[in-house]
Amino acid sequence: MQGEREVVVCRLEHRPGRDDRMTTHVGLTARALGADRLVLPDNATQAEETVADITERFGGPFDVARTDSTKAFVRDFDGTVVHLTMYGERVQDVEADVRRVHGDESVLVVVGSEKVPFDVYEHADYNVGVTNQPHSEVAGLAVFLDRLFDGRELDREWVDPAAVVVPRDTGKRVVDPEDAPADRVGDVENASGDRGDGHDDHDDH
Amino acid sequence: MQGEREVVVCRLEHRPGRDDRMTTHVGLTARALGADRLVLPDNATQAEETVADITERFGGPFDVARTDSTKAFVRDFDGTVVHLTMYGERVQDVEADVRRVHGDESVLVVVGSEKVPFDVYEHADYNVGVTNQPHSEVAGLAVFLDRLFDGRELDREWVDPAAVVVPRDTGKRVVDPEDAPADRVGDVENASGDRGDGHDDHDDH
Repeated sequence: MQGEREVVVCRLEHRPGRDDRMTTHVGLTARALGADRLVLPDNATQAEETVADITERFGGPFDVARTDSTKAFVRDFDGTVVHLTMYGERVQDVEADVRRVHGDESVLVVVGSEKVPFDVYEHADYNVGVTNQPHSEVAGLAVFLDRLFDGRELDREWVDPAAVVVPRDTGKRVVDPEDAPADRVGDVENASGDRGDGHDDHDDH
Repeated sequence: MQGEREVVVCRLEHRPGRDDRMTTHVGLTARALGADRLVLPDNATQAEETVADITERFGGPFDVARTDSTKAFVRDFDGTVVHLTMYGERVQDVEADVRRVHGDESVLVVVGSEKVPFDVYEHADYNVGVTNQPHSEVAGLAVFLDRLFDGRELDREWVDPAAVVVPRDTGKRVVDPEDAPADRVGDVENASGDRGDGHDDHDDH
């Protein structure tokens, strides 16, 4: 987040078609929960496009880029490398260490897919398990980021959004920050249009 | 979790094929992060099977069931209903309330998909946004459960697992709790077999 050392999320591998939705969710979760930057494999074009599109609509700063070698990117990263894996050390045991390190240097969070080569385990400064149970790389990333930032990411502000969701106890309210001052905006039911409902379906276009 | 009021996760809708992986990740996340029970739409047979299979392999208790009307299930639920939506109140503003209520009654966490009907917003005791940004229902569920349980879910114990992952700083170690006492098990590289690597691909079979 702004004013802090950079946090980068790298999705190690991607299978076009099959992984489009998961990779997109990894990217949108990285953006929403405080990371500064997303690095994707070269073939993850659709996920890159969706994340860039959401950033344009809902604000930044958040960068997304593709690379022809995520492994080289991980190897050459200047900072601390955290690899999320169900085989790793328990997040509750290492999170304080990682938070301390993040005070001094950038942090790269590596999210796997399919088989992760052993040298990623070896190269990582921390192999971290958000539980040692099989579940979801999206869930692991979300809990890790929330704990890394100690909840600060929930209060971050977004620069230049075209649309702002106003939190409310029932229904939906989306405002255009330029066209509609806060005291004149009405309730916009289903204004989210093709962005889907709730947290789902952000790759549906 | 055991010794506490029940927490149930309900996935409101499901599109076979298209949603199989997301619904499975919702289910595995619910199990790994402390929920007691998962309720799925009738057509989510593959996700149900995978979650039941993982529970048999990695331990319980965790129940999964399908219903021909998730809407009726939500409407008739005896307890507090929390609907996760990017349009809802900020999780950091309502989580203390929900935790307090959970001391006295069961909690149902509703995870949407596609369009959520307005009566779900109206019926819910809390509409809660894990950020008011578009990201992933899996990420929202994960952060919500971690905050609801205040991290206690990471220390829960599993009953009758066939396989146990031993947290470690590099590589993978999976042990069979029946066949191999802790002091004699070796390092089992890639012992996870078809369960995939890390937190991914648990619906690959």
